[in-house]
Amino acid sequence: MINLEQIRPFFEPSSVAVIGASPIITKVGYVVLHNLLTNKEKWIFNGEIYPVNPKYSEVLGVKCYPSLKSIKESVETIIIAIPAQMVPSVMEEAAEIGVKAAIIISSGFSEVGNVKLEEEVKRIGLRSGIRIIGPNCLGVYDPYSGMDTLFLPEVKKLSSGREVVATPRPFPGSIILISQSGAFGAAALDYMAGHGIGVRCFVSLGNRCDVAEHELLLYFSEDKKTKVNLLYIEGIGNGRGFFEASKEVSTLKPIVALKAGKTSAGARAAASHTGALSGVDQIYGAVFKQSGIVRAMNLEELFDMGRALNLQPPARGKKVAILTNGGGPGIVAADTCEESGLSVVKLSDDIINRFEDLKKKGELLPIMANSNPVDLTALATSDMYVKALRILLDDKDIDGVLVITLPQTPSILDDVIEKVADVSMEQKKPVVACVMGGTEMAEEFRVRFEKSGVPSYSMPERAARAIYSLMEYGMYLGKLH
Amino acid sequence: MINLEQIRPFFEPSSVAVIGASPIITKVGYVVLHNLLTNKEKWIFNGEIYPVNPKYSEVLGVKCYPSLKSIKESVETIIIAIPAQMVPSVMEEAAEIGVKAAIIISSGFSEVGNVKLEEEVKRIGLRSGIRIIGPNCLGVYDPYSGMDTLFLPEVKKLSSGREVVATPRPFPGSIILISQSGAFGAAALDYMAGHGIGVRCFVSLGNRCDVAEHELLLYFSEDKKTKVNLLYIEGIGNGRGFFEASKEVSTLKPIVALKAGKTSAGARAAASHTGALSGVDQIYGAVFKQSGIVRAMNLEELFDMGRALNLQPPARGKKVAILTNGGGPGIVAADTCEESGLSVVKLSDDIINRFEDLKKKGELLPIMANSNPVDLTALATSDMYVKALRILLDDKDIDGVLVITLPQTPSILDDVIEKVADVSMEQKKPVVACVMGGTEMAEEFRVRFEKSGVPSYSMPERAARAIYSLMEYGMYLGKLH
Repeated sequence: MINLEQIRPFFEPSSVAVIGASPIITKVGYVVLHNLLTNKEKWIFNGEIYPVNPKYSEVLGVKCYPSLKSIKESVETIIIAIPAQMVPSVMEEAAEIGVKAAIIISSGFSEVGNVKLEEEVKRIGLRSGIRIIGPNCLGVYDPYSGMDTLFLPEVKKLSSGREVVATPRPFPGSIILISQSGAFGAAALDYMAGHGIGVRCFVSLGNRCDVAEHELLLYFSEDKKTKVNLLYIEGIGNGRGFFEASKEVSTLKPIVALKAGKTSAGARAAASHTGALSGVDQIYGAVFKQSGIVRAMNLEELFDMGRALNLQPPARGKKVAILTNGGGPGIVAADTCEESGLSVVKLSDDIINRFEDLKKKGELLPIMANSNPVDLTALATSDMYVKALRILLDDKDIDGVLVITLPQTPSILDDVIEKVADVSMEQKKPVVACVMGGTEMAEEFRVRFEKSGVPSYSMPERAARAIYSLMEYGMYLGKLH
Repeated sequence: MINLEQIRPFFEPSSVAVIGASPIITKVGYVVLHNLLTNKEKWIFNGEIYPVNPKYSEVLGVKCYPSLKSIKESVETIIIAIPAQMVPSVMEEAAEIGVKAAIIISSGFSEVGNVKLEEEVKRIGLRSGIRIIGPNCLGVYDPYSGMDTLFLPEVKKLSSGREVVATPRPFPGSIILISQSGAFGAAALDYMAGHGIGVRCFVSLGNRCDVAEHELLLYFSEDKKTKVNLLYIEGIGNGRGFFEASKEVSTLKPIVALKAGKTSAGARAAASHTGALSGVDQIYGAVFKQSGIVRAMNLEELFDMGRALNLQPPARGKKVAILTNGGGPGIVAADTCEESGLSVVKLSDDIINRFEDLKKKGELLPIMANSNPVDLTALATSDMYVKALRILLDDKDIDGVLVITLPQTPSILDDVIEKVADVSMEQKKPVVACVMGGTEMAEEFRVRFEKSGVPSYSMPERAARAIYSLMEYGMYLGKLH
């Protein structure tokens, strides 16, 4: 059994010591201490903060301690940013004073062949009950508690002298991101911030000598702020634990996983990166399937699916309808849906009759085809979208609708966004949107769809894979009942 | 044999008549006439322009003719924007006065079941030698000659009253885009404009009753401004013609094709869209392979490959090296390269020796792994990129390099962009870049890489597929010799 109270100190520590705290701006120990102090000033971070470094009596205006043991108050969590060889002795000290959790940022362990050093640290943790995240990781970023151990600078200077955002912190949201790779994690935070995706919590696991994905999944499964879990995995250490935990968690909250190291070249690279054995890809596929994990096939898809599962309900089945004002993109969406195993159904007589009725009344265009994809043609108006979408969602043989609104045609106006969003709420069936284009109006459409609760994508294939994730997850939930 | 002089009047007409010219701003005949007149005012379009509409004696300040026949001067090209039923009689008139080319924008032909009407128009064209683009199409946009028949508004008003760019015209460039679907075409132009991709010429073919892809490919193969051809295809009419032309053209200039209607649902949709029979997907795959066409698997990839082939040389083989400062993204890139059939080669002893030498001198980091992907680690500097890239490109067993520069780490500066671009020119081997992230700095890196001649992508999978296109095309060229 996993004791979730052991995990809490990583995210909501009552007190934290920064081992290797430093006044030098380029040092990890500076950035981490600075993050925490800033968050405390803003009343986001509530724990006590103790810098530790024998070289200084004060760092960033705060009393600095020569050692962990010299802190008289209790320390719950330590963040370690000192050379690898010195980590075991700090861990020994931590054990003596009753530390609960250690985030080891330092690298130079099994990823460069120092397996023994990592084993030693791990043993100290096991013996003393100190749980460990890392080593060789970025650690934790929790925008709600203010726990932020990311040592990458928020701002960097370009050669022109201009300052730009370097490693942004996404705003608070409901998506958990757990990554073995720190580089992927940093790039992912940048992606989320740039695309307006909120994060509930980000954890970089690095070499993962102790705390692993499954414990974090279980921990956040009881968290009200968490809606979706995203995993970037190179290899799983504790297969049984992962399988059992995923099965349990995915009945409550969706999990999407990207597994890297699928090919032999990728697997070789994974082994020399975080020391992970990436295993046979088919086995991962089967485990994911059986435990209700939706598998993303690439990095962008991981976020695309995350956004869909965050905003829309899972589907009851895999029968999809496509509603469009452009033939080509509709065809491409149909292709991707079918390739993913969804069924682009033939429309029922009832739907066709309802369409024909509206055509007679002049509310839908006579040239509109009664087929799936439903092509409203380039003359489609917002009202035609509302009418057709309502008919499709009402039908018991349709489990979800992919709505393509190309904003370039003259007759479609931006009120289609909120109208589609409103209709999408009438039935508990998923709706996702596709808006193609790279300039202002397409961008505006996508952002406003997303704000209205409908995830939106710039390419029909991406929208198709997003609705696939809602159907795949929904069917897993359906099988449980 | 194809007479290319028959194609010229579509792009560089000496005179053009707009059938259905109108002063009403929402009409196709207004937009097309307005485009041409504006381009003539700017000295971009050089042909004579004749509005035709019996209802008006003047449109947009220009004398309007009641009929084609009433124009006394010779008319080379006509653009038809009147109801479908009236098109045959206009074509008859056009035949009488010796028109060379007709762009039929009007819809209401075979795509809605009016096969006979389309046959009639086609027959008139065949009999009289008038070549036809369309019907049911957007026609042509050539930023060099100013020939612009796109009837979609450049600017639209949002409900807030704010004006936004709706169907932008990309700047002049060297990429040809030929699309059956007009909606895809409009969205594609929007994408190209938004992503800073220049267009040599865009043609929307619609129902394609006469002029088809292969004639356009041949026409532009002799054009100095053209570097890459992109095709969006639902189905091919003249298979033999397409095959022969592609084989010929692709020895001169790369062709990338996206084939929609792969699945049964997609094929059904294609049939009711432009009346295209999309055929067996495997046959298309084989035809593409034999004629040197690189196949894009999705819309984004079509442009990703187009940009790569536009900026970088084709490769001699399929042996790829990956250079990165982040392990995870390197693994994902390796996976996609191998899945695409590229070989993520083991590094030669020579390379390893050169790496070791530089490690001893302190010019590369000791923790850097001598494997492929070459992970310079999060401590990599711009100079390390230069040194490692040069060693990789020098090696005869490496045909191209995928360079991942994650800008989030502290030690990498933006001078890496121009430095990598400079090194990439030393050998005639392709280099593509990946810069992950969605905020300012990542965006800045990508734009500057592209400006320096190195195509850059926001995801490692996309960069991997881009270098695949350079290798696939290069190997086709290699087989010819």
